[in-house]
Amino acid sequence: MSLNKSNRRIRLKSRPDGMPDEGTWELNRAAIRSPDANEILVKVSYVSIDPAMRGWISDQESYLPPVAIGETMRALAIGQVLESQHEAYQTGDFVSGMFGVQEYATLQPDASVAVIDPQLAALTTQLGVLGMPGMTAYFGLLDVGQPKQGETLLVSGAAGAVGALVGQIGRLQGCRVVGVAGGREKCEFLTDVLGFDDAIDYKAEKDLGAALGRACPEGIDIFFDNVGGDLLEATLFHLSHRARVVICGAISQYNCADSVSAQINYIPILYRSARLEGFVVLDYMPRYGEAVEALSGWLSEDLICPHEDVREGIEKFPQTLNALFSGKNFGKLILKLDTAE
Amino acid sequence: MSLNKSNRRIRLKSRPDGMPDEGTWELNRAAIRSPDANEILVKVSYVSIDPAMRGWISDQESYLPPVAIGETMRALAIGQVLESQHEAYQTGDFVSGMFGVQEYATLQPDASVAVIDPQLAALTTQLGVLGMPGMTAYFGLLDVGQPKQGETLLVSGAAGAVGALVGQIGRLQGCRVVGVAGGREKCEFLTDVLGFDDAIDYKAEKDLGAALGRACPEGIDIFFDNVGGDLLEATLFHLSHRARVVICGAISQYNCADSVSAQINYIPILYRSARLEGFVVLDYMPRYGEAVEALSGWLSEDLICPHEDVREGIEKFPQTLNALFSGKNFGKLILKLDTAE
Repeated sequence: MSLNKSNRRIRLKSRPDGMPDEGTWELNRAAIRSPDANEILVKVSYVSIDPAMRGWISDQESYLPPVAIGETMRALAIGQVLESQHEAYQTGDFVSGMFGVQEYATLQPDASVAVIDPQLAALTTQLGVLGMPGMTAYFGLLDVGQPKQGETLLVSGAAGAVGALVGQIGRLQGCRVVGVAGGREKCEFLTDVLGFDDAIDYKAEKDLGAALGRACPEGIDIFFDNVGGDLLEATLFHLSHRARVVICGAISQYNCADSVSAQINYIPILYRSARLEGFVVLDYMPRYGEAVEALSGWLSEDLICPHEDVREGIEKFPQTLNALFSGKNFGKLILKLDTAE
Repeated sequence: MSLNKSNRRIRLKSRPDGMPDEGTWELNRAAIRSPDANEILVKVSYVSIDPAMRGWISDQESYLPPVAIGETMRALAIGQVLESQHEAYQTGDFVSGMFGVQEYATLQPDASVAVIDPQLAALTTQLGVLGMPGMTAYFGLLDVGQPKQGETLLVSGAAGAVGALVGQIGRLQGCRVVGVAGGREKCEFLTDVLGFDDAIDYKAEKDLGAALGRACPEGIDIFFDNVGGDLLEATLFHLSHRARVVICGAISQYNCADSVSAQINYIPILYRSARLEGFVVLDYMPRYGEAVEALSGWLSEDLICPHEDVREGIEKFPQTLNALFSGKNFGKLILKLDTAE
């Protein structure tokens, strides 16, 4: 590893109107800055590509401020400390944190920067099952969804990073699990590899409501929604009494021009005494340890399968992010940066 | 009281398209039927006029089957047993139950028919604070809304039967209570008589969102919604983190032609980690005693005010019901039937 290199980084050039395109991003090269007091220099190995990124580049209220024009794109990543001026970090430590889409990050570590154990699981898995998607699936399903043995759990975006985990954790809780995904290949993967009880290919169904009725004949007790839009609305009419709808995301809506806005007819929630609840995984940060322990236990017993879709090269960031919004990813989407070494 | 009279009753003549009108109802006269084995004959004194009635006459899924064309209109009422062939009921007992909009009901008592104590409170109050509106306010606010000391509680339809109680119970829990009602008179009543901290006259506000921001500067922790529609949507943008939206009703939508359908933009629920939950008070039937005890205690200590709007005469049923939907009632709406005696 040599510091004679420069730092390649992806910066936000302009805010997209809808799907991000060529004008949205700029691949920029800068000098690698040496850490000042209390700072560390991290060589970034893997960048997590997440649906939340679309929200971060909108000029719209969210749980974090928008990424500014000209700023390096915000991203959760994993890397290795090259140089440390901070007493809690040593050269050679593997760390995860909000390092951004760049090859080298020089920063003062905040609460998000954690030293990780490379023996615990592959680094990519630490961005997936043991990272944000894992935390999201674990707390969203168990805390917000409150699954009970024998209940029917429906998961949208089921072949995605969070959805695949939600379904697998739901199976471990004794739920009957039905996934919704786009395409036969993804659906077969859900039932044949991940052990889902049934899968609905939304691209092949003309009448989503009828498909939901066939797949969930006793009603839906928990709907874990990553997608939003028409599917959410169709689902509301199949909820059972006291159903829980966990709103984890609304990826179908993130690229709507103007602003994120998704209309649903909420009346069935009234008639079914149901609950629709949003959550932000950052609220659970004090309890991440509990989830990591459970998830790494399940991983070591082969009870859950880490499913990752790793692409290579920082210059591929724009198309990799768009793959997420067009449903072209298959598992946890990760960008590997240090490909040349 | 003489049985030589006939029974006047309101029957459903046709299903309305939107607001019920002249063609919806028929005032019909029939013989009073003597009770058979296990039946009772009840002389109906007071009929409760409730928003749920609009749902009962729609040919649409609900928690009870629709009232059939030609059937006596379903209604919760209070009356006195004139004759009993059922061992659990004596002549002279005061009873509440689903007696319908009619002067005399002959029926086999089901679980809804309860003997009431006329000493506990006025009969009208037993349809209001100690009746369905009381149960709805009590369990909806305390169980679903989970109020905590110092939180901001917003109530829509605040001058109605349920809303007025929710606000008063909320004050007893230590909440800051803001009511939304139509017209200055209702708003002044909320703040001056019922002790609400603030009130918003939705008819006088051009920008409901701005009014909500002024009245709830620290955000809304609990929204108890009886109204739905634009107000609900505006409210979502003022929710505080982990807010609870209790969907009790959607009276603004009940007379929409076609079917009850209310679109909201649910995205703020995601960003605020909020919860939107419907409930049906009948689910709490096993716990009604707990609510009656608490509410009658508060009544006897003058901590809550029973506010009733009593109209007279069975022939007034159609306009009385419509008063509810046009916001012309002021307090719990009740129809008194035995006016001539």
